[in-house]
Order: sequence, then C-alpha cells, then structure tokens
Amino acid sequence: MAFDHGHREEHVDDGMIMIQANLDDMSPEWCGHVADLLFEAGANDVFWIPIYMKKGRPGVMLNVLVHSTRLEAMEDIIFAETTSFGLRYTSVACHRLERRFDEVHTPWGTVRVKTGYHGGRLVEYAPEYEDCRRAARNGGVPLKMVYEEARRLWRMKEAGGAERFEPQLAGEDKNPPFGRRNGN
Amino acid sequence: MAFDHGHREEHVDDGMIMIQANLDDMSPEWCGHVADLLFEAGANDVFWIPIYMKKGRPGVMLNVLVHSTRLEAMEDIIFAETTSFGLRYTSVACHRLERRFDEVHTPWGTVRVKTGYHGGRLVEYAPEYEDCRRAARNGGVPLKMVYEEARRLWRMKEAGGAERFEPQLAGEDKNPPFGRRNGN
Amino acid sequence: MAFDHGHREEHVDDGMIMIQANLDDMSPEWCGHVADLLFEAGANDVFWIPIYMKKGRPGVMLNVLVHSTRLEAMEDIIFAETTSFGLRYTSVACHRLERRFDEVHTPWGTVRVKTGYHGGRLVEYAPEYEDCRRAARNGGVPLKMVYEEARRLWRMKEAGGAERFEPQLAGEDKNPPFGRRNGN
Amino acid sequence: MAFDHGHREEHVDDGMIMIQANLDDMSPEWCGHVADLLFEAGANDVFWIPIYMKKGRPGVMLNVLVHSTRLEAMEDIIFAETTSFGLRYTSVACHRLERRFDEVHTPWGTVRVKTGYHGGRLVEYAPEYEDCRRAARNGGVPLKMVYEEARRLWRMKEAGGAERFEPQLAGEDKNPPFGRRNGN
Amino acid sequence: MAFDHGHREEHVDDGMIMIQANLDDMSPEWCGHVADLLFEAGANDVFWIPIYMKKGRPGVMLNVLVHSTRLEAMEDIIFAETTSFGLRYTSVACHRLERRFDEVHTPWGTVRVKTGYHGGRLVEYAPEYEDCRRAARNGGVPLKMVYEEARRLWRMKEAGGAERFEPQLAGEDKNPPFGRRNGN
Amino acid sequence: MAFDHGHREEHVDDGMIMIQANLDDMSPEWCGHVADLLFEAGANDVFWIPIYMKKGRPGVMLNVLVHSTRLEAMEDIIFAETTSFGLRYTSVACHRLERRFDEVHTPWGTVRVKTGYHGGRLVEYAPEYEDCRRAARNGGVPLKMVYEEARRLWRMKEAGGAERFEPQLAGEDKNPPFGRRNGN
Repeated sequence: MAFDHGHREEHVDDGMIMIQANLDDMSPEWCGHVADLLFEAGANDVFWIPIYMKKGRPGVMLNVLVHSTRLEAMEDIIFAETTSFGLRYTSVACHRLERRFDEVHTPWGTVRVKTGYHGGRLVEYAPEYEDCRRAARNGGVPLKMVYEEARRLWRMKEAGGAERFEPQLAGEDKNPPFGRRNGN
Repeated sequence: MAFDHGHREEHVDDGMIMIQANLDDMSPEWCGHVADLLFEAGANDVFWIPIYMKKGRPGVMLNVLVHSTRLEAMEDIIFAETTSFGLRYTSVACHRLERRFDEVHTPWGTVRVKTGYHGGRLVEYAPEYEDCRRAARNGGVPLKMVYEEARRLWRMKEAGGAERFEPQLAGEDKNPPFGRRNGN
Repeated sequence: MAFDHGHREEHVDDGMIMIQANLDDMSPEWCGHVADLLFEAGANDVFWIPIYMKKGRPGVMLNVLVHSTRLEAMEDIIFAETTSFGLRYTSVACHRLERRFDEVHTPWGTVRVKTGYHGGRLVEYAPEYEDCRRAARNGGVPLKMVYEEARRLWRMKEAGGAERFEPQLAGEDKNPPFGRRNGN
Repeated sequence: MAFDHGHREEHVDDGMIMIQANLDDMSPEWCGHVADLLFEAGANDVFWIPIYMKKGRPGVMLNVLVHSTRLEAMEDIIFAETTSFGLRYTSVACHRLERRFDEVHTPWGTVRVKTGYHGGRLVEYAPEYEDCRRAARNGGVPLKMVYEEARRLWRMKEAGGAERFEPQLAGEDKNPPFGRRNGN
Repeated sequence: MAFDHGHREEHVDDGMIMIQANLDDMSPEWCGHVADLLFEAGANDVFWIPIYMKKGRPGVMLNVLVHSTRLEAMEDIIFAETTSFGLRYTSVACHRLERRFDEVHTPWGTVRVKTGYHGGRLVEYAPEYEDCRRAARNGGVPLKMVYEEARRLWRMKEAGGAERFEPQLAGEDKNPPFGRRNGN
Repeated sequence: MAFDHGHREEHVDDGMIMIQANLDDMSPEWCGHVADLLFEAGANDVFWIPIYMKKGRPGVMLNVLVHSTRLEAMEDIIFAETTSFGLRYTSVACHRLERRFDEVHTPWGTVRVKTGYHGGRLVEYAPEYEDCRRAARNGGVPLKMVYEEARRLWRMKEAGGAERFEPQLAGEDKNPPFGRRNGN
C-alpha cells in the first residue's frame, strides 16, 4: 500500500478504487515503466497477476490501487502506455494502520524502521528495504543479516534494552499483544 | 465457499465482503497457519494469488471471503499474523446453491456426498474429500478410485438403481437437466 | 473486454459485474468449453487465475465480466458446467475507448486493424489476430512479420503516406499525443 | 505428452529433450499460434509457465517436449516466431504407459476412451475431450455429464456389466490394482 | 529439500532425479493426498507449478525430487493416483548444506532450530515450523512473534549471550561470514 | 539470456547449468537484491517461478542460468542471501543466435537495436529497453511509441530506405526469410 513518511493515524479510507486491465497483447518489457509512471502519478499500489486468457494466451492483469480522485490520471497513463482498449474499476475501502518511523544504527549503516499500530498496539515493524540494501552493499554482508540485526536493534530500543521480547510489544499495558483477537 | 453441514436453501447473500492484502515481505511458511486461524474465526474462504509486485518481488495476495459482520475479527488476525500495514475490502454478493448431504457405502468405508441444487434441479454432487481420503488410506486403494466409486454409488442410489444416468439427474420431470440455460 | 465490430463511442458502463468462482475440484480440461459457452451467452470477458487453496490445492478462479442483465445466464452455465457450489459477484464500471475499424492489405492478405481513441486522440491500434494468423498461414511467413507489416501499413495509411511517425498519431493538432497526462 | 492413436507398449524413451525459452518481450497473443506450429512440426507437448523476470517483467517460459531428432525443426520455429535470442535444452527420459483405445456410446454420441496400463495393469482411462465436447454440443447437455456417463459406460463394458467397480480394474488376477505400490 | 534429523555433512548428491508430470485433467482436490503419498514413499520434495496447456487449460505440473533408486516407487504412485499417461525425468545434482539441530526455550514452548553450514560457516538458521505453530497455539500469540523470539534466543545462545549479532555468526574466526563470496 | 555487447557468432554452449532452489520461507522483498548479486557475479539469467509447496505454502523457485565454471560463485550467493538449505542443478545446452548491434536516431534520442541471426538470416530485432525508456522520459511520449518508431527506423535503415518490409529481411537472397522451417 501507499508509503508516506511521518506519523499517521490508523484509518479507513473508503474513497479508494481498484483499476484493472487485462493485457493479452503487450510486451512484458513495458511493465516496469508503466508501473513507475503510475506510482509517480499517485498510485498507492501497482501489481500484476498472471492470468489465462482466451485462445491460449498467458496474459497479465494490471492492478492499480488509487484514490478515486486520481482515476483520470491513471486512465490516461494506462491507455497511453499499455495496449488496453478498456479497463474496469470498483470501489474499495482501505484500512491502514497507524504508522510511525524510527531508526536504528547497524554496524553497516542507519536503517529506518516502519512500525504499524492497530488499535494502539504494535503489530508490525519492518526495516526499510532500501536502507537495508544500502547497508548490505556498504558492509559486504548478506541482506538477510542486515534485516535480522535491524529488527533486533529496534526491539531492544523499543524495550528499553530489556531482554524478553514479548512484554515490550504492548506499549500501554502488560496484557499479551494482539489480545483482541482472542476475545472474539 | 463456506461449508456447513445440513440442509440449506439456495440463496444470495449480499452482506459478504472480500478482504485482500498484498504481502511482499512475509515468509510463505506462515500462510497455512494464517489460513487456519481465519477459517476458525469464521472466514468462508481463504486463498492466495501469486502476484508480481514492485522491485522484482514475487509476492502473494491474501484473499478472505467473509460476512461483513466478521470484518473486525479478520482484520485482527491479518494485522497480528501477517506483515501487512494495510488491507482493502469490497462488498460482494454470494450466490450459494441449495445443499443437501447424503452418504454412500464404498467397499473401503462410508463417504458423504454433498449435492447442490440450482432452481430445484440437481447440478452438483461431490464426495467429501476427507471421507474419500480416509477410505483410500484404509483400503490401500487410489484416491481416484474411491471418488469414482462414490460417485457411481450415489448416482445409482439417486436413480433408484436404474442404469441410465441422465434422466435421474432431474428430480421432478423428464426434461433434460440444466434446461434453463438453453432457454436463454 | 468485449469485442464488437463497427464504430463505438468512448463511454463508461457502470452496469457491469464481475463474477468469480473458485474451483478446487474441476478438471482443467473443461475450462475451454466453459469459456466458449460463456462467451456465446454474452460474456464480455472470461479468464482464469491460478490460486492457492486450502489443503494444498492448486486451484483456479473463474472470472466472468458481463453486463448485470446477463447475470442469470452466466450463473446457469457456471452451475451446470463447473463443479462450483457457489459464486460471488460485484459491480464494476467499465471504461471503454472509442473503437474504429480499418483494414490494410499485406502481401499475404487483408488484415483488419482495430483502433482506440481516448478523448478523441488515437491511443491504440491493433491488427486483428485471426486475420494475421490466416495471413501467416497463407503466406508461410512468421506471424510476427505479419503483425509488424500490418502495423507499418496502417500507420502509413493514417499518415497519408508521410514518413515521420509521431505527428500523425494526433489527429486534430500538432501537440504531442497523450499530452493530457503531462498536464496532471 | 504425445498423443498417438492405436495400441502402444509401455516404454521409456530416453532420447527426448525439453527446450525452454524465456520470453520477456513477446505479445501473449502469439502464443497459441506458436504452439500450433510446434505441435504440427512434431512437438510431443508445448506449455507455458508464468515467470518473474528482471526489471519487473511478468514473462512466460515456453516449454517444448520433443524427440531429439526434431530439435532443429523446433528451433527454427522458435527463433522465427518468438522474440527469443536464445534457448536452452536438456535431455529427459519419458516413461509412457501402454495405451489402448476403446469407445462407448453415450446418448449424445460415440466417445473414444483412452486407457493406460502400467506393468500390464489398468491405471488410467480418459474419455476423449473433443468427442465429449461434440456430444455435449449435440445433446445440449453439460460437458461434465458427458464425461461422467462415458466413464460409467466404459467401466461397465470393461467389467462385462458387473456392478462392483474395483475387481474389474485388475485384468488378469484378483489382487487389488496398483498393488505394487503397497509392496514397496 | 529433504529433511532428516541429526547431524549431516555438506555434500553433493548427483544421483538425484527430478520427475515431472503435466496434469490437465485432474481435480486439484487430489494434490494434497498425492503429495503425502510421495513424501511417505521417500520423495525429497514435492511441489506443483501452474502451467498454461493447450486448448485453454490451466493445468499444473507435478514435480518430484527423489533419489534415482526410488524412481519406480514414485512412478507407481503417480500412475496410480494421478491422471497421467506419461511422465518425464532427468538427472539432477543436489548440493545440501551441513545441517545441525539445536533447540531454544521460548515462553510458549521449546522450538527446534535447524542450522546450515556452507564450507564450515553458518549461513542459515531456521526455527521449525511445527514447533513454532504449536507454541503459537499454546501461547495464544502470533506465529511471527514465536519465530522472532526463537531466532533471537538461538542467536544469543550461539553467541554465548553476547549482544552484537555479526561476529558470532562466524564460528572459527573474526572475518565477516560468507566472506568467500567477496573473494571471487 | 546473457547480454553482451558486440558481434557474436551463433553457437551452442553445452557447458551451462541451471541452478534451482525452492524457497518457502523467504521474504519476497529480498528477491531483487539476490538477483542483482547473481547477475553481477556472472549469471546469464535469473528468474523466479511461483510454486505450490507443502503445507499450503505459496513459495517461489529461484532459477539461475550460468556457465558451469561459475557454479561455486552462484552457490555462495544463494546460500548466503536466501534461506535455502539445499539447491539442485543440471546441465543444459544453450543455443544463442548471432547478435549484432546497430542504432537508430528517434526524435527523442538514440536507441540501440539488437539483432539476431539464425543460420545467417535475420530473425530478431529488438530496440534496447533502457534506451527506449530514456527516450520516452526525455520526450514525454509513451514508451510503446518509442519502440514502434525505433523498429520502423531500423527496418528502413536495413532496407536501404525501401518501403516494402519483407524482402529486406533476408540478407543474401530473395527467398522468404525463415524458409528453413517450411523445408522441414
């Protein structure tokens, strides 16, 4: 989903649309460029699904998630850059977590960590890919080692240095995190 | 779609929602567990679609079909158990056939048969997978043989033992089944 | 999307529906026949998506795009011809380009060319597959050569024989085509 | 795998090759034509695998299974008809069952049935798709009903009309079919 | 790849084969059972690839990795349990890491950790899925939290409790791990 | 396949290997980085196939095509950067076309064109993606327009400016190109 820096509240946005176009006669070589243009013009997400089309055609379906106010801009790009004679769209609601950004200092460079909160509780934390990749390049170490170390450092930071993992996940209280699920 | 034992009328349920979350940084190892939890919490269906995401990522899209009243329970699980920072959902109507359950006695064990009726006519019959698997295990015979025999036995039972297949498919009359389609 | 000969205005049709059925116990051998029947009964598009279903099943999802007035006809076919006990559908809007048909004369036969206009500007042109295939068969030449030649001939015809490609794309003026996108 | 009418002994052919070409810049529209040409020139099987290629390209991999003596003919077609600048191939051994052909008379037309024998035991039987499709068209009945009836009729014929399914599967003796597996 | 408990040296096994069978007329419902039987009979790995077959069939390719001495047992199962009239196989060499097993004690239960060594250096460590799933069930906590904690505990154990991650990865010396790659 | 600038003869290289590793517990986020490293270390091609693995895991299979002399370098990267405990490889022969490079001057910038010759005959020509993308960016025009124009210009150049497409494809004679196929 969309990536935007800074603090942001958990919310549901029901003004989103999903645009889809089935492509059975386009060179896959163009897909990267099309996606770049769509992202630059405001798409929240762009992805492709392999599909089986008529007459033995292994086509792809272009998917664009975007706010409804950006529909026309997306359509202009899709019609200009793909081979599509038609597209379809439908309304979707997007539920996005509260996002905060933090950073940790690995031996190979600083890495931002994106965190997600659901109902005020921490449920996700993810080191930034580009930062990790840069650190892995700089340090000549495996990318997976950078991720692991960044995750470890962030948890320690969050926990105030304490060793046990689980209690620190829940910010405000001592209940096990994600407890709401068990209550259902 | 949802599986529920006992008799049930054909109906359209327009209070359903389809929840989707694109996952580009989650271990596929977790998918089975996530699906189990979603089913246990009331999901009617859970499945995964391979998708092509940005930056060369062969991700997957989680799909959950569920009644709208269960949205929150699904969200709690998705946010707790996957790496998603956001999900989307849209309303869908589900048209479900009338379902009845019968059983047949194969040489290797009893097998339930689920049947589906559209406008009062029989259109589907399906031996239960778990029963067939158990029978195949018990009898040391191929699963496909169990299915074939269960299907044959059920048709004979339905037909009152008569040999010809087709006329017995239509319950109330002698018209060919699925005739409505030809009328369109 | 739907294919219909003759001139047609660009428009948005918001009376369309997308029907989906997950199939985890159907022989893929039947898919071609099912698609043929759906197209014959008025489907605008039929395609299949590989999906990962429960219990290790590599199933497929049937997708049918059709006008809402044809829902019942599609359902009759799906229930009669597949193994589905239920299907789902949702409303979608389809944006279709203005379409015109032209033809060109290749050394191996006549080929129709379908063109698409967005806001009055040419954005797509596509030689017809069946025509190109017939020409390739007749001429004993590669299909890709027929496409290339048909595209070249159509651009020359459109341009009045002039050599430069780009200016002729925009019908009414000398602005670069697809210019609206840059204005966003 | 290859389809050839008439009786044929079970055998292993270790003179086969699998040819593969990754296509990241070809219109999927051409795939059906390419496959047709390859089959006509002697390919035993042609299929396509969706793959994720560099730079965000949802490409396809062409796969051609063919006898090594037909390599050159396949290469000529692949280089002429696709966009490939290179292909690869490797030796494979093909184990093919003994195949026999029979036929049954359904209420909607005659259907050939292909049967497969492994070590002299019946392990597969499959009504021919084109025959079933024609029967379904002729009779205005679902294709799945034609398959079911053709399978039932063939089993009855094989069994000499007896009712129990399983004992008739094994031709020469009363041991359960596929017994070799249990002996391992 | 194969999973076997206990210590095992890094090695290359060039007596392996990959068996493949394209299935265009089999119910996906049977796939789980087929895979179970193949694993029980000695398959090192079983997986399925979605493929596009002729006549618009979204089929699957069964893949079985196994030692060549087990070929016949695999064939018996494939011919007995699937709809295949033929299969193919080719020789492959398998390079397997040295594997060791350790265990850690999470707050929710004991979890085994499988580690892999390449040229004597630690390159992989993976908590066992079934153990993590059981712990997550027992503790009512997210599976991802169990994995994270198991990984953290194992690294601490490996490092003798020290805090920094990277130096402990390399057992015998202070060079960065995976250094051989940089030496190429 | 491998991309190398300059003239190169058509040839078969039978010293290649295909390396494969099934990944069911790796974040897809790492795939781009892994592919980059493999390409930098000499891989001729790197791609990913979506596969269905045991326990409901939608995994991916890493594929690396490389010369056998580079096997060890590839293995070091795969074991260091992915989660794999084992990989497999097999010998393949690669048939590569003779490649030449030319260039054309579009209104939006110079574009290199790669051409492929099979048995001395032109069978492929492909404008370079990165050049076309740069031109499209520079000119603010659709990528597909750049491709089309680059292809048109190259054909004109090849033909000495003549208008008819087909005769110029065959360099040395007036026979239809790709004629060898028809001779089989």
